[in-house]
Amino acid sequence: MSETISEAVPGNTLSEFDRDTAVRQREPGVHDVRLSPGWAIGHALNGGYLLATAGRALGETLAHPDPFTVTAHYLSATTPGPAVIRSETARAGRTLSTGTAGLFQTGADGQETERLRVLASYGDLDTLTDDIRTSAKPPAMPPLDQCFSARDNPAGPDAAPEMGKRLDLRLDPATCGWAVGAPSGRGEMRAWFGLADGRDADPFSLLMAVDALPPTAFELGLSGWVPTVELTVHVRARPAPGPLRVSVSTVNLAGGFLEEDVEIWDSADRLVTQSRQLARAKAN
Amino acid sequence: MSETISEAVPGNTLSEFDRDTAVRQREPGVHDVRLSPGWAIGHALNGGYLLATAGRALGETLAHPDPFTVTAHYLSATTPGPAVIRSETARAGRTLSTGTAGLFQTGADGQETERLRVLASYGDLDTLTDDIRTSAKPPAMPPLDQCFSARDNPAGPDAAPEMGKRLDLRLDPATCGWAVGAPSGRGEMRAWFGLADGRDADPFSLLMAVDALPPTAFELGLSGWVPTVELTVHVRARPAPGPLRVSVSTVNLAGGFLEEDVEIWDSADRLVTQSRQLARAKAN
Repeated sequence: MSETISEAVPGNTLSEFDRDTAVRQREPGVHDVRLSPGWAIGHALNGGYLLATAGRALGETLAHPDPFTVTAHYLSATTPGPAVIRSETARAGRTLSTGTAGLFQTGADGQETERLRVLASYGDLDTLTDDIRTSAKPPAMPPLDQCFSARDNPAGPDAAPEMGKRLDLRLDPATCGWAVGAPSGRGEMRAWFGLADGRDADPFSLLMAVDALPPTAFELGLSGWVPTVELTVHVRARPAPGPLRVSVSTVNLAGGFLEEDVEIWDSADRLVTQSRQLARAKAN
Repeated sequence: MSETISEAVPGNTLSEFDRDTAVRQREPGVHDVRLSPGWAIGHALNGGYLLATAGRALGETLAHPDPFTVTAHYLSATTPGPAVIRSETARAGRTLSTGTAGLFQTGADGQETERLRVLASYGDLDTLTDDIRTSAKPPAMPPLDQCFSARDNPAGPDAAPEMGKRLDLRLDPATCGWAVGAPSGRGEMRAWFGLADGRDADPFSLLMAVDALPPTAFELGLSGWVPTVELTVHVRARPAPGPLRVSVSTVNLAGGFLEEDVEIWDSADRLVTQSRQLARAKAN
């Protein structure tokens, strides 16, 4: 296990994340994107990756640059390949702009199907006051070099989802019981988080990072797919360079649904993101 | 202070909440509503009341009856009087339907202005499995008869906002320091919650209840207006009859924004709702 989570991206090489979330404006409010199979978990593309991509398109449409609060509803499974994102402004204010985006794919029958719908307000993180009164504490977890990477997976380094190769994820051993058939029974998942090619975090990669850890359901003893119904992300500060700590918790697994609450802390001990998703828990 | 939070609504009388959130379909996807001044806080109508009203209209448009996860972005201040809600389906699935709604008012100049935009997924709460594994605990708070109602307000019973007359709200004394100039410094607010006319809770009144308590900012020592930017509500179960317990917490007052996290517990000790809002905290 290497000692550092990130290595510098050489020269002007575009990072994997920037390359795979790049959107190309066809006309105002219409962006083309080629979704990469590199962010798949099983057969489906990761919801955080899709949100980051749609978020970049919406950021080009809105008058403000940074996602402040972003909600996505996932409508159907997204496949790698071309997609189009249609976005529009609902209101352009002085401090915040609000708008919507829809990501569509065209099937073999020529029919467009919507994959996710986004409603979001954007602002400018650089204009926030420096009055910070946070009573939350960073998650208690071991140093990075005592956490588990995909290379430590008892099922072998290739057992991780394809998306795992894009990330430098180091799981807190206290939340890894599921990987050896001994889930803790607590709805908790924690990890050090970076991108594998060393790209530092920004507001758009945070939209992906909130959905990048194994589901808390695994530690609750469920093993099936946990599809996201809805995901809301609050980006509260521009993250400092360096590894992030991501802490996920679930308290209410009930009626076939559960919530995942996420906090992301940066290397300067700032709570940079809070998110919550509602997901379906398929019974074993 | 009466011993019970609710008295029966006599006969067939429509409750205040049902009357004031009633929507009338003009054509499919277009509903008229008359917003009541009875739900004002200062000059603005309460965001939860508006969400409940838009939620009812969207529920008539979608194929499923109950709000499961509902997000609203508040675009401009809403005034009492007529409004129109335009809603549409994004996807109708077997278990969930997803759609959007916008609430508009027409100004003196004849121009329509959007007040809030909603994105939501609805389902049928009666179809949920009865597998309940909740590790959260109901809030620790005194019995209802030891909590404070508007009648106990040291500034007089009429000092409460107009909306307070619609509610039977009993605040936990531990979170009432702000009312006597001695805020606790903790971002917490708790109350027993009912409707003043005794109407029991349902999924739509929960959409209002999550935004009905005084802001946690008051207990953090701020006294100004705390306008909601975005509010997301997960309704996780149909509430049992009887008083609700509403617990609100804030951990991240930073950069001029704060989150309010809400849990609502019903009389059967079921966690029926989780919500989070992002709000602006105006400096004193």
